[in-house]
Amino acid sequence: MGDWPKIRIKTGDIMGEKVQGNLVIVGGAEDKEEECIILKRVIALAGGSSAALAVLTTASEEPEKTGEKYKSVFRSLGLEAINLFNINNRQDANNSKIVDELNETTGIFFTGGDQLRITGTLGWTLLGKTLLQMYHRGVVVAGTSAGASVMSDTMIIGGDSDEAPHISKLSMAPGLGLLKESVVDQHFAQRGRIGRLLSVLACNPYILGIGIDEDTAVIVRPEGVLEVIGSNSVTILDGLEVEYSNVSELSSRQALSITQVILHTLSSGARYSLKERKPVITD
Amino acid sequence: MGDWPKIRIKTGDIMGEKVQGNLVIVGGAEDKEEECIILKRVIALAGGSSAALAVLTTASEEPEKTGEKYKSVFRSLGLEAINLFNINNRQDANNSKIVDELNETTGIFFTGGDQLRITGTLGWTLLGKTLLQMYHRGVVVAGTSAGASVMSDTMIIGGDSDEAPHISKLSMAPGLGLLKESVVDQHFAQRGRIGRLLSVLACNPYILGIGIDEDTAVIVRPEGVLEVIGSNSVTILDGLEVEYSNVSELSSRQALSITQVILHTLSSGARYSLKERKPVITD
Repeated sequence: MGDWPKIRIKTGDIMGEKVQGNLVIVGGAEDKEEECIILKRVIALAGGSSAALAVLTTASEEPEKTGEKYKSVFRSLGLEAINLFNINNRQDANNSKIVDELNETTGIFFTGGDQLRITGTLGWTLLGKTLLQMYHRGVVVAGTSAGASVMSDTMIIGGDSDEAPHISKLSMAPGLGLLKESVVDQHFAQRGRIGRLLSVLACNPYILGIGIDEDTAVIVRPEGVLEVIGSNSVTILDGLEVEYSNVSELSSRQALSITQVILHTLSSGARYSLKERKPVITD
Repeated sequence: MGDWPKIRIKTGDIMGEKVQGNLVIVGGAEDKEEECIILKRVIALAGGSSAALAVLTTASEEPEKTGEKYKSVFRSLGLEAINLFNINNRQDANNSKIVDELNETTGIFFTGGDQLRITGTLGWTLLGKTLLQMYHRGVVVAGTSAGASVMSDTMIIGGDSDEAPHISKLSMAPGLGLLKESVVDQHFAQRGRIGRLLSVLACNPYILGIGIDEDTAVIVRPEGVLEVIGSNSVTILDGLEVEYSNVSELSSRQALSITQVILHTLSSGARYSLKERKPVITD
């Protein structure tokens, strides 16, 4: 199976220092009406009854409407301290009064929409840098759909769904960098996105592909273990054993070949060690 | 990576005897207007200018219309000897006059439609048995969509597209048995079917999953090597290294977990050895 050295994922070791926060990375369309397993877990990780949650609607086209929706859902789950941050420009993201308010919260929730709105608005602002510090000191950072994609160093911003892998159709951009050495994709099975995540791996097999289904999330713990919750599954694509790909020789119309990708499909309760790059199997 | 013995695929060794025919297994929606790479290859494998092709429309809801369409396409590609077999009952499939006619052809092409119409009509009839003998002695057997699914011992007849793997949503049935130890799925990327093919692997990791995209085909050669042609790609899922699955413990609503599946995505020109269970990489 090849003899490349296993690379240690640096999640839990952001900016050279030990991280204490959890990430909750949601594949979109999480249940907001029935058991609300994922949103309840966000509250629990943010401190339960003492949680103070910031909802960041930067990705949304209709931030007020989206924000009020989440506010009402989180309230119905027993949370009182919810603060909406409808930040849609870099001036607000550099406003120390706003950032100080954010800094008081114990959890941050990024709504869905367009991931470029998040990174384009928050990247390298006071708020963006504060976010990393908050995660570092133990604040839970959650995001759904576009809010999930932005978690990694490099993020997918476009690519075909329900298609064979075609490198020319994939677009990527720098993300927020909370999750290291991985690329997240969302609405994964529901939009047939394995082709585009395989294309990312072909670009650099060192990246771990994490494809998260709707109403499903991974919790990334500080110790570098990922736990799956929700009703569908998470697909892990590991390229460390890849033996061949034709990524550098393709014409724009050609489909990709890539061999020897390790795939894991993980459903609720399953865990995966990002440090060891393998599922944690318990009886 | 586990230490299970590699199992030798018995393709090319059907019914204990050496097979001489090729299979052309098409993922549906093959090009019928432009370069027609796949249909041209069917003609070439059936003998080129001396080919005599039988088009079996048993799967189709509108057999006459489907048959005439393929007849006109094959004719436009220079083939004169095309015989339509619109067989829709077991009496015809046991009619020795009809079967004798079929037996004169050098290639068989199964159209798409419903795979159960093919197996329900032809299974264990004179025609069904003659088909196996023809393949055995060197006749090319091609099939698209439903005509692709029927090739294997066990075939998929239903299951969710664009969904996480759920074992309860998968249905299978016995196929024609030309391809051993494998299960074929078609319209693969286009309908987001990796979840259902992973579910098949979870049932029995010994099965090789072959997911074929639209306008894409695998040619299975007598020596047990598969070649990819067409515009998209073929996904191979190999379960021989699977370390864990929860298939036997699932409630009907739960999504599946399965770990350590080997995945290869292969595009035009790529080859894969069914006997060795690995891609054939050439420079």
